[in-house]
Amino acid sequence: MIRLLLILLDLGGTFVFALSGAMAAGKHRLDIFGIMVLAFAAGNAGGILRDLLIGATPPSAIEHLSYLGVSLLAGFIVFFWDPLVNRHNPLILWFDALGLAFFAVAGAEKALAFGLNPVMAALLGMVTGVGGGMLRDLLVMQIPTVLRADLYASAALTGATIVVLGHMLHITSVGSILVGGLACFFLRYMAIRHGWHLPHARAS
Amino acid sequence: MIRLLLILLDLGGTFVFALSGAMAAGKHRLDIFGIMVLAFAAGNAGGILRDLLIGATPPSAIEHLSYLGVSLLAGFIVFFWDPLVNRHNPLILWFDALGLAFFAVAGAEKALAFGLNPVMAALLGMVTGVGGGMLRDLLVMQIPTVLRADLYASAALTGATIVVLGHMLHITSVGSILVGGLACFFLRYMAIRHGWHLPHARAS
Amino acid sequence: MIRLLLILLDLGGTFVFALSGAMAAGKHRLDIFGIMVLAFAAGNAGGILRDLLIGATPPSAIEHLSYLGVSLLAGFIVFFWDPLVNRHNPLILWFDALGLAFFAVAGAEKALAFGLNPVMAALLGMVTGVGGGMLRDLLVMQIPTVLRADLYASAALTGATIVVLGHMLHITSVGSILVGGLACFFLRYMAIRHGWHLPHARAS
Repeated sequence: MIRLLLILLDLGGTFVFALSGAMAAGKHRLDIFGIMVLAFAAGNAGGILRDLLIGATPPSAIEHLSYLGVSLLAGFIVFFWDPLVNRHNPLILWFDALGLAFFAVAGAEKALAFGLNPVMAALLGMVTGVGGGMLRDLLVMQIPTVLRADLYASAALTGATIVVLGHMLHITSVGSILVGGLACFFLRYMAIRHGWHLPHARAS
Repeated sequence: MIRLLLILLDLGGTFVFALSGAMAAGKHRLDIFGIMVLAFAAGNAGGILRDLLIGATPPSAIEHLSYLGVSLLAGFIVFFWDPLVNRHNPLILWFDALGLAFFAVAGAEKALAFGLNPVMAALLGMVTGVGGGMLRDLLVMQIPTVLRADLYASAALTGATIVVLGHMLHITSVGSILVGGLACFFLRYMAIRHGWHLPHARAS
Repeated sequence: MIRLLLILLDLGGTFVFALSGAMAAGKHRLDIFGIMVLAFAAGNAGGILRDLLIGATPPSAIEHLSYLGVSLLAGFIVFFWDPLVNRHNPLILWFDALGLAFFAVAGAEKALAFGLNPVMAALLGMVTGVGGGMLRDLLVMQIPTVLRADLYASAALTGATIVVLGHMLHITSVGSILVGGLACFFLRYMAIRHGWHLPHARAS
């Protein structure tokens, strides 16, 4: 059951990140293939990086076709549904936030399952969450959201940490995954809507 | 025999991509070492990424010195033969197209040899093809050709798909590799010379 | 003893590169989390890449918490000690040079320990050295130092080559590591202070 939940989280995160990637590609006037490439890159870079780092080769996104399938589906939706490629569409931000939450908890859970120590499992959850958006932004030559945005990597780390703490306290995975994912999304929501942020270094 | 062909294709692709990388470095006025770094990066990033993803570690380009050799050879040719670093030299585009064709078919063939399913083998062929140019462009801070150019990733995917289909229909590898490589190069040729392109998403 | 030395070199390189990453993040006005992310990325990307390429998974930086620890320590120092985030601080350049020297020799030594051939061991030393700075610069959208700066990758390669030669001549590792590291730092020093550089390609 936990395996199935993990796959659903992974695919859900892939889908929403792929939407954000395809929308970024559409905004930059790329052709349909560029849209598909960016959908796949954004949807799967985080998970592939996580799998390479924990030694789970070949990565799920390469071994199973379902990841490719949901990425292409997202690409097609963006390509054929005009409003999504509007330059000022805030949806790209929300899909990104949703994907972050999905991947942060799924990444932490998978790293735990591969026997990593708790601190590193939480960090790998964060890496899984931020990896896809990072590659998406680099490919269209923008400073990655993770570095510009408020409460981004920290939101992912919070979600992943909750999953890891739940695991250490022997709470059922379903519960800690739900709480962790919601916490991550909530932090991003407050950052986007109400400008919550962490302190900056004072430049002299 | 197929192993030898694979190595020749890999080295051929490495050589022409290394030429394109070295020329890009020359255009940006890098020193001889920067030229060598970009030659190696452009010539080998796609293959190394492919090998990491299919779990073939250490990657061929790290294990065998020949890949380094042809990359450095390409770097030296560009460094000592002035006309190649002319800012408006169209050769960079053609070497890139040639490398794309070589790597697309070699990548698909190697992924099949490692037992990946046909759809993923075709995609890994594409990744192998576009990876080197992508890193080359990121390193000199340009939006990657794969995202700007017409019929680029799609040309690589076409070539790789032909190789995979040939494999499924039990056609000799040599034949399908030849047809696949030519198809990929032909599509890039039509895109560069006659402006063939795929539909773009309409921005609202 | 050589294992301990290797770990100290790796951690030392991680620390100074993490400082340079955190300072780059501070200059770009990132929040405390962005600083930590860039500190970890700059401090560990080179080592993680090396470990993935030689097949040492999971990479040391993921398996052992000490790498994370020194990266975060560097991040905190930069965050709380104002003068370090001054826009024109030359320290970032010197920390980078120091990290390059540490990693070049540690990378070569580790690649030799994993049985790579001497030429590739020297190159992996170079990759370990330049990887962290490369990712740091890409993340804040600058052409990587390795491509802009004089005697950078070449300095790393010199240091790594000395380690490899020492290994082939059966000189004690400590000696060749010391000489290699000093040679790498010396070349960067001469490049920064006295403008030493390699020849450039003549653009026509």
